[in-house]
Order: sequence, then structure tokens, then C-alpha cells
Amino acid sequence: MKIVILGCGRVGSTLATMLDHAGHTVSVIDFSSEAFQRLSPDFGGETIPGNGVDEEVLIRAGIKEADAFAAVTNGDNRNIMASQIAKEIFKVNKVVCRIYDPIREETYRELGMETICPTKVGAQMFFDALLCSRKALHATRLLMTN
Amino acid sequence: MKIVILGCGRVGSTLATMLDHAGHTVSVIDFSSEAFQRLSPDFGGETIPGNGVDEEVLIRAGIKEADAFAAVTNGDNRNIMASQIAKEIFKVNKVVCRIYDPIREETYRELGMETICPTKVGAQMFFDALLCSRKALHATRLLMTN
Repeated sequence: MKIVILGCGRVGSTLATMLDHAGHTVSVIDFSSEAFQRLSPDFGGETIPGNGVDEEVLIRAGIKEADAFAAVTNGDNRNIMASQIAKEIFKVNKVVCRIYDPIREETYRELGMETICPTKVGAQMFFDALLCSRKALHATRLLMTN
Repeated sequence: MKIVILGCGRVGSTLATMLDHAGHTVSVIDFSSEAFQRLSPDFGGETIPGNGVDEEVLIRAGIKEADAFAAVTNGDNRNIMASQIAKEIFKVNKVVCRIYDPIREETYRELGMETICPTKVGAQMFFDALLCSRKALHATRLLMTN
């Protein structure tokens, strides 16, 4: 699969490396060239310095041929805008967007965007870890998945 | 249960509100008083401004009577130090520590600390979402739990 990732922070660089090692064709965009140093030294994908809400930059990253797109910068607005461009303009089949703000995450999810909210996931994981046994944690995750 | 939370950022404030609403006695520590504005308006717990690696601050938050402690500031070092103080000095039964850096997370986990690494969790969730169907995602989470 050809996958474009916007944002080469902690999660973006880890994700890019995982996908590259799994045999996918990966391009990573970040406005800071220094961010690419977070990638594994054996990362075989492409790195594109630039603004991910700029269509020219997305095209340079291969968005036109991409099967999937992930927006994982630290800015909710940037992730939302880039995901909408990937979905609506470039018709990317699979688009997943990180939104830290739980309220906005719910809104955009209801509008049909595939979203991941680290705030909700994180709080729920700590809630389970603090209160539950391993068995109960297992059950909670099952419920969350269904 | 009496629970002390260090860090009132996005995750800390969401977690504190969840635990309070679930009927637990919650104290939240943050060095910035402004951070407490993130808590739900009906939050019934205590807020303690101060440095969470300062034992006096932890005592004011009720660490001596606490059943559980969560360290969720944005600083890995601060979270690790505070968790060690809670566990070793105050003998808190359940201590969970957020560590963003996957390498340090593994080290401290191997040393017996209960840790959550948002970087690894986030990257894995995006990996699953980009590549897998909902059914496969479900199976992956099952595997991660076991």
C-alpha cells in the first residue's frame, strides 16, 4: 500500500517506521526537516518538508496515488483540514485523523471522518489501569471495540 | 478509592473528571493553577497547585491515604520521579506512569513500573486503522491485551 503520513513527531515517526518495516510505500510530510531525524535510520520511505495543508506538498508526497492518509501533527485544525483535502479533493480511500480535543473529535466523527482522540484513549487507559484488574481491563477494551 | 493525579493537562483533567463522576475521591496536582480550568465545572475533587516531585505537595494532595496514583504531566522525567516517590516512599498500592519515550518506557516497565506509552499506543492504533478492517482491529486489540 502507498501511505502518506502528515506529521513526523513521536507518533508519526513511529507509525512511518512501522509501516515501512511492514513493506508499505511510505511518504512523511513535516514542516520541520529536523523532525525526520526521529525516523529509524533504516527508514526506506520518502520525506517531504512542507506544509501539509498545501495541495502542492501533498501531491509531491504522492497523495494522488495514495491508498491511505494519516494526519498526526500536533495541531487539530491542521489535521482536520489536511484530512478533508485528502478525502474530498484527492479521494484517498482511507483517511484517519488525530484530534486531541474530544468535543471537536466527536463533531468530526459524526460528520463521517475517521478519527482517533488520544485524550479519550489515554484517559480511558489510565482509568482502567487505576481501577481494574487485568481481566476487567481486557473486558473494557472488548466493549470499546464493539 | 482515594486517587491522586499529577498533571491537569488534557488527559489528567479528563481522567480526574471521569474518576470523580465514578464516585472516587480525587486530588489533582499541577504547577499551573490555570490548568485546573480544564476540569469539568462540576468536578468535586481537590486541586493542589505545586510541583509533584515535592513530597510536601504530594502529602497536601493526600498521597499518604491514597490507594492509587497517576503521573500524567507532559514530562517523562517528572512522571517517572513522582511515580517512584509515590511507590517507594509513600507505598501507594497502584501507581501508573505516563512515559512518551518508548525506549525509557520499556526500561522502566522492565524495572517493574506500571507504565503507559501514548506514543506506542497511538502509533499502533493508527497502524491498525490504516491497514485493518474493524474485525482485524478487534483481533489486534485482543492480542495486545493478552
